[in-house]
Amino acid sequence: MTLSLGAIVDALGGELHGERTQQIHGLSTLALAGPGQLSFIANERYRQQLADSAAGCIIVGPPLAAAAQARGACIVAESPYVYYARVTQLWKRHTSPGRPAGVHPSAVVHPGAQVDPQAWIGPLCVVEQGARIGPGTVLHSRVTVGENCRIGARCILHAGVVIGADGFGFAPTPEGWEKIEQLGAVQIGDDVEIGANTCIDRGALADTVLEDGVKLDNLIQIGHNVRVGRHTAMAACVGVAGSATIGAHCTIGGAAVVLGHLQLADRVHISAASVVTRSLLQPGHYSGFFPIDDNDRWEKNAAVLKRLHDLRTRLQTLEKRSNQSTSP
Amino acid sequence: MTLSLGAIVDALGGELHGERTQQIHGLSTLALAGPGQLSFIANERYRQQLADSAAGCIIVGPPLAAAAQARGACIVAESPYVYYARVTQLWKRHTSPGRPAGVHPSAVVHPGAQVDPQAWIGPLCVVEQGARIGPGTVLHSRVTVGENCRIGARCILHAGVVIGADGFGFAPTPEGWEKIEQLGAVQIGDDVEIGANTCIDRGALADTVLEDGVKLDNLIQIGHNVRVGRHTAMAACVGVAGSATIGAHCTIGGAAVVLGHLQLADRVHISAASVVTRSLLQPGHYSGFFPIDDNDRWEKNAAVLKRLHDLRTRLQTLEKRSNQSTSP
Amino acid sequence: MTLSLGAIVDALGGELHGERTQQIHGLSTLALAGPGQLSFIANERYRQQLADSAAGCIIVGPPLAAAAQARGACIVAESPYVYYARVTQLWKRHTSPGRPAGVHPSAVVHPGAQVDPQAWIGPLCVVEQGARIGPGTVLHSRVTVGENCRIGARCILHAGVVIGADGFGFAPTPEGWEKIEQLGAVQIGDDVEIGANTCIDRGALADTVLEDGVKLDNLIQIGHNVRVGRHTAMAACVGVAGSATIGAHCTIGGAAVVLGHLQLADRVHISAASVVTRSLLQPGHYSGFFPIDDNDRWEKNAAVLKRLHDLRTRLQTLEKRSNQSTSP
Repeated sequence: MTLSLGAIVDALGGELHGERTQQIHGLSTLALAGPGQLSFIANERYRQQLADSAAGCIIVGPPLAAAAQARGACIVAESPYVYYARVTQLWKRHTSPGRPAGVHPSAVVHPGAQVDPQAWIGPLCVVEQGARIGPGTVLHSRVTVGENCRIGARCILHAGVVIGADGFGFAPTPEGWEKIEQLGAVQIGDDVEIGANTCIDRGALADTVLEDGVKLDNLIQIGHNVRVGRHTAMAACVGVAGSATIGAHCTIGGAAVVLGHLQLADRVHISAASVVTRSLLQPGHYSGFFPIDDNDRWEKNAAVLKRLHDLRTRLQTLEKRSNQSTSP
Repeated sequence: MTLSLGAIVDALGGELHGERTQQIHGLSTLALAGPGQLSFIANERYRQQLADSAAGCIIVGPPLAAAAQARGACIVAESPYVYYARVTQLWKRHTSPGRPAGVHPSAVVHPGAQVDPQAWIGPLCVVEQGARIGPGTVLHSRVTVGENCRIGARCILHAGVVIGADGFGFAPTPEGWEKIEQLGAVQIGDDVEIGANTCIDRGALADTVLEDGVKLDNLIQIGHNVRVGRHTAMAACVGVAGSATIGAHCTIGGAAVVLGHLQLADRVHISAASVVTRSLLQPGHYSGFFPIDDNDRWEKNAAVLKRLHDLRTRLQTLEKRSNQSTSP
Repeated sequence: MTLSLGAIVDALGGELHGERTQQIHGLSTLALAGPGQLSFIANERYRQQLADSAAGCIIVGPPLAAAAQARGACIVAESPYVYYARVTQLWKRHTSPGRPAGVHPSAVVHPGAQVDPQAWIGPLCVVEQGARIGPGTVLHSRVTVGENCRIGARCILHAGVVIGADGFGFAPTPEGWEKIEQLGAVQIGDDVEIGANTCIDRGALADTVLEDGVKLDNLIQIGHNVRVGRHTAMAACVGVAGSATIGAHCTIGGAAVVLGHLQLADRVHISAASVVTRSLLQPGHYSGFFPIDDNDRWEKNAAVLKRLHDLRTRLQTLEKRSNQSTSP
């Protein structure tokens, strides 16, 4: 399948330098693209690679427009990375048959669920009683949406997602644990994407909430009564414990952990594999994980770390002595 | 739907101060509950919030009974949190239709499996040959129970759970890995709850075992031949490697890791995100993760951490010098 | 069911010392095996346990042959652990009915997918358009293989695996995130095993690749455009971020994290729970996690760790003073 450069700029805007009739057979990275392919350069840092690329056409920003034109065909766009994202969408629409609306015959949808006629419920999904699925939303295969959970418009739920399993709530008794029935549900806004095998638990009393535009990667755990603010994104394997409130426009790196009942302000950014143990009320970039090293060196350093408090005490002792000896 | 205060204490006991005919329309937290709602106060620490609550009725322990009566209707119970748990169960029974016993028509149950007539096998579950499911046990949607695995009575398995996939066993050869077939199964006791997308692998030779009353949250991995003792609870994203033996009444925080072949005594408590690398034979509370910080400070501290052993050597050198200079 | 020692050595080789007609009723560990069971001893370290074992027959290597013969029946093999692995395979073939080839009637296989007649597609699996499944490959229950993804020969995919969900790609805009459609697929070689609920994302432009003989445990995340080299093995709960390139014959411990765009050489070994934040271009063993400790001690050490850089500065100050005072 092919798209002409003219068709691309007609659909997406941008300033074409080159022939409208030139045909594009696919998209590729700057290094790998051939003469039939379209590529992009999102960052001026990669200016050096521009001249060497064999791409048929390159999407660039205004600062690289002259250099790109000197090389050959290009499309100049304000934000080349966003433009590239929109080209992938155009390409997908052009090359894939439109996903059908409706319910795959193998899905199990409770008659008391409300599925918008413009939604798609994929093979072997389960939509339980009282659940609501908004227009344009896609459930890929083997997704479960539990009782009374609501999914907004234009959401994408990948295979194996579980929305609305019980939150983890038990009262300790001398004999063991007494189950606290989870009486809340899950509310998911519009334009939310949820990765494969990710789990969003239902609330204990009130609902668990993902606001509009939240993007979650695969194998993420969102505990009961968590609230995730608009346009916050989390990479894979993150765990968010119950009743945490995460602001808008945050990013949480892969395998990070957020403990329960904490609050994260808007625009908080957490590095991968970090453990958030206190509320972070100021925007900023926070980190905390052990740096990797050769195993032998790590072992030596880790052994000293287990006596770090003693080390400080010894240092204080020396400081006192030193201060005494230098005092008159 | 509503419940009267009289109906609640008739079902669950406790000392009602208020009108038996007062109707409850739902449960809520102390801060959010309105006049039609029932709330609870589990801890004397929150005494301050008692007077301000608009809840129609509050469950309290004996120490707060007088203060609660001064405010309005209350139920006095020995353990208000356990009482609240039982109210959620009562509420759930009252508001939800009883879950049917039987097998959903979309489930795939091998004719050689034994499913108790009082169990429920939900939509799109798979129960393989020789598996046994006890009375009152509920498999929510899309659960797999593998060959010869046994689930006790009154268990709850949430969506996406996999019981009895092969343990991870391979013998190294010069060319790669030789599969060790996993010939054991999984045995799960009574009153066990297992969260969404959690995996319990079958044993290599003997069985993997979860004893009665174990509670596992979502996205947990239990390796082959692990044994988890009675009433132990694990929060989400925990990984337990093969042949670990975990005692009774333990709690394992979210995203903690327990390495293989270790032993944890009864009543061991592991903080979230900690890595258990040695057996813990004494009850107690154990932790180990890097404290989170502003990224800049973390970077500086992490850089020094990679030279911590050198730092100790330098400190020792100073100590020697100091001791020499202060010696007569 | 039983196997005779003669049948075992006829099938697998090895030097039998004992009666060919002796019947074996099962396999077990050295400590637990009874007279009807076969066991093995993989490591000379366990020589002490040999004499005490009640096993009917023991697989040993040449260094333990004499000691094992003195005890009773044994099979001497060059590599007893590999021999044991092959016995488990023999036992499985002997005791389980051969897994059927074909497609379970509850699976949803797109007519545009190519499933080899010698493959097995288990209950409630989904195989999408353009996917290809090689000969001898087994998809256990509830596996999804997405559009255009290719699985080689003799692979095993456990329950809940998701191959070919979208990689996590979004371009930031002032309003939120613009989806980058993931136009690549997943290529999986021959003899690959993938554990329960593990996810392998499709590539953004090119494909995500697992080479021949890769072994992945449960609940692992492989991001888009990752390449994993031949015979590399990863324990459960590992996360590999997008565009990482991992060499051949590596081992990655459970819950380790590999950040994006990094390169790991062949024969790199990562300890459990370590976070790989830089390329590791030399073979070796790398580690990095906080050592576990009593919670009180951990708290004290962690508090000092947050001031470690200051501690170094204070040490430097003392060193300067000390050098000045000892200088002439």
